[in-house]
Amino acid sequence: MPVFLDTARPDFDAAFATVMGAKREEAADVDAAVRAIIADVRTRGDAALIELTTRFDRLELTPDTIAFSEAEIDAAIARVPADQRAALDLAAERIRAYHARQMPQDARWTDDTGASLGWRFSPVGSAGLYVPGGTASYPSSVLMNAIPARVAGVARLVICAPTPDGVVNPLVLLAARLSGVDTIYRLGGAQAVAAMAYGTETVAPVDKITGPGNAYVAEAKRQVFGRVGIDMIAGPSEIVVIADADNDPDWIALDLLSQAEHDTAAQSILITDNAAFGRAVADAVAARLETLARRDIAGASWRDYGAIIVTRDLAEAAALSNRLAPEHLELCTADPEGLLAQITHAGAVFLGAYTPEAIGDYVGGPNHVLPTARSARFSSGLSVADFLKRTTIARMTPDSLRAIGPAAETLAHAESLEAHGLSVRARLDRLDR
Amino acid sequence: MPVFLDTARPDFDAAFATVMGAKREEAADVDAAVRAIIADVRTRGDAALIELTTRFDRLELTPDTIAFSEAEIDAAIARVPADQRAALDLAAERIRAYHARQMPQDARWTDDTGASLGWRFSPVGSAGLYVPGGTASYPSSVLMNAIPARVAGVARLVICAPTPDGVVNPLVLLAARLSGVDTIYRLGGAQAVAAMAYGTETVAPVDKITGPGNAYVAEAKRQVFGRVGIDMIAGPSEIVVIADADNDPDWIALDLLSQAEHDTAAQSILITDNAAFGRAVADAVAARLETLARRDIAGASWRDYGAIIVTRDLAEAAALSNRLAPEHLELCTADPEGLLAQITHAGAVFLGAYTPEAIGDYVGGPNHVLPTARSARFSSGLSVADFLKRTTIARMTPDSLRAIGPAAETLAHAESLEAHGLSVRARLDRLDR
Repeated sequence: MPVFLDTARPDFDAAFATVMGAKREEAADVDAAVRAIIADVRTRGDAALIELTTRFDRLELTPDTIAFSEAEIDAAIARVPADQRAALDLAAERIRAYHARQMPQDARWTDDTGASLGWRFSPVGSAGLYVPGGTASYPSSVLMNAIPARVAGVARLVICAPTPDGVVNPLVLLAARLSGVDTIYRLGGAQAVAAMAYGTETVAPVDKITGPGNAYVAEAKRQVFGRVGIDMIAGPSEIVVIADADNDPDWIALDLLSQAEHDTAAQSILITDNAAFGRAVADAVAARLETLARRDIAGASWRDYGAIIVTRDLAEAAALSNRLAPEHLELCTADPEGLLAQITHAGAVFLGAYTPEAIGDYVGGPNHVLPTARSARFSSGLSVADFLKRTTIARMTPDSLRAIGPAAETLAHAESLEAHGLSVRARLDRLDR
Repeated sequence: MPVFLDTARPDFDAAFATVMGAKREEAADVDAAVRAIIADVRTRGDAALIELTTRFDRLELTPDTIAFSEAEIDAAIARVPADQRAALDLAAERIRAYHARQMPQDARWTDDTGASLGWRFSPVGSAGLYVPGGTASYPSSVLMNAIPARVAGVARLVICAPTPDGVVNPLVLLAARLSGVDTIYRLGGAQAVAAMAYGTETVAPVDKITGPGNAYVAEAKRQVFGRVGIDMIAGPSEIVVIADADNDPDWIALDLLSQAEHDTAAQSILITDNAAFGRAVADAVAARLETLARRDIAGASWRDYGAIIVTRDLAEAAALSNRLAPEHLELCTADPEGLLAQITHAGAVFLGAYTPEAIGDYVGGPNHVLPTARSARFSSGLSVADFLKRTTIARMTPDSLRAIGPAAETLAHAESLEAHGLSVRARLDRLDR
């Protein structure tokens, strides 16, 4: 059973702090190991990649087989069942349509001094997506990372995906094909991140690296940050569901279990203004856990990190959710739009009883790469903006320089930056002649 | 003398690679020292801040004097000369006007299945700005960091600025006041970053930390990244000037020296299609260096990292600039707008002979916190967006769930995530009844 909290009880604050502070991730001490792997790839290039892949993935590569050939991709894709292909097509189309609306506008205007100001967006030159291997090898994540990059106009898009013992998920290759990925490398771990950041004889370096991964991949991204751009360091998944009594407890239970089945470190929290409904959901979760295929994982997550919080009203529920700043937030109430207006921090919000979070994982349209571990306080899910950068533009006329140049000169002087001031003064002197 | 390159010469590629690869920053090994300081602040709070400030800044603080009082700020501001106050006012007003245009739009629409989709922006809850002490204590940087935060709607905005021996720059306090900063702490170094990230008895934690700093500050920001948001890890400043022969060599020389005078590790590069003009600029730099107050710093930067590159034409100049992805780029040519269309990577662009880069440092309007060390390939200057985050929104209707739910179910099954599929199926079954 998960913890059962009630805001009306005097011990609530302490109990809620425990839920909020639950340390769900062990900070594996992989710092030095990752540093060594990156140094090795920088020094020895392909030779290091080949050796590390033999060691970690039990796969013998050559420079010619580091990347999948088109024929290999074709052959794998041919094995994908028709219904899965159709579902992936629908997902790709909806994700593309949503993200196409995110393209920001360039701007250019003339101010009252006559100066022309503005900015312009342009895509990063190249991007590399990390796709985990094994059970966490999700084709949906390929779409969610690759499509925004393509919408942004990134010219070169590659994937690194480990293939332990040579095994690859054909759906991952199909998702890559559907999203317009140029090259797929059979590389995983910190060595894949190092190859994308620094390049080797076979792998051309990229400008930005995104995508989830284990502790080694996360640490490698942190270490190459600055040399290349990265998206975020993702932690275990989490969901908050705010639901009133007018819901089917089984639906809400399944939504909570959708997060819990990802990972024993996932966290699912129900906040409700009705204690009886909270107990009904707890019972429904217990019933579903008896038959769920991933019941060991989901059960451990629910037992260790799950919570049901009973509040006096829905406003209090919104306030608690804001303190949690959840990755996913479902609003299953009579007036979800009204409640949404009270939400300040959340990665993605799902409104109403017919929007289970799983819709957002696949076919809703919004991105499923979202800020975890309360980082929705300050960061956003993946978007087209992650694959664009802004160049600011300024163009003075003689009149505008006359108008604002003297103030720049004064401030340069105040900051003891003489050449800054002189670069303005030399021009003003010419204009005054 | 800086290096003089010519794209027509056979050794150009190697010489250009040297200019591009010049390692201008020593990676000081401050990792462990910073880790210890952060741990100390987390454990001992104010006591650690007070002790570390005594050690590093030779200043005895108490919990009551960690923050400046309003009376102290008033007294300091009263000492600012009127012309400096007026210049700072003008700068603040122009920076505010530029950044107000950056506010992104929320969006909400209904797709062809009847689903309602969109996103909403909201400000980060609180932000902390680091302001270096000593000679790099720039009031202009206070404006450039604080104003975008205020435009974004950040509710609580604080500054940490070290005050070695108790000395503070009154202009920094005035800039903070003008930009609406709530609290200014007499704190510097890694301990200031730790206090803003984790909080102490006196310093409430913030959600996002921005601003430049030395190697300790940069490493501390890297270490707290994830716990809070950070802007970027800034390196030494740099400029590329693309200029044709129709410019005053002295103006261009002063623009190059404006970067060089910041730091011996700064880099100034002229790219021109006219060798004689390149030589004239070199002579003008040498002449200005004889009298410049910061000639030791600017001279060392120009000697060690400066370069003059002669190209066959301006298109080649644009291509080289794109490889450098400079923080600042001046286009001093007959048709700067035409050349701008060829620029793919640059932090900020300044067009025409009357737009010295120094205008952008102070009063132009665009932000002067910009990506360095070729990171303009994948990142942008500071903006209002750095103080906002996006929450995505999805709301299905029964019809839209009928239309796209089955595809979600198929993909959940393909990814072996049973509860995901069941959460959709349970709703579809109800609708089918």
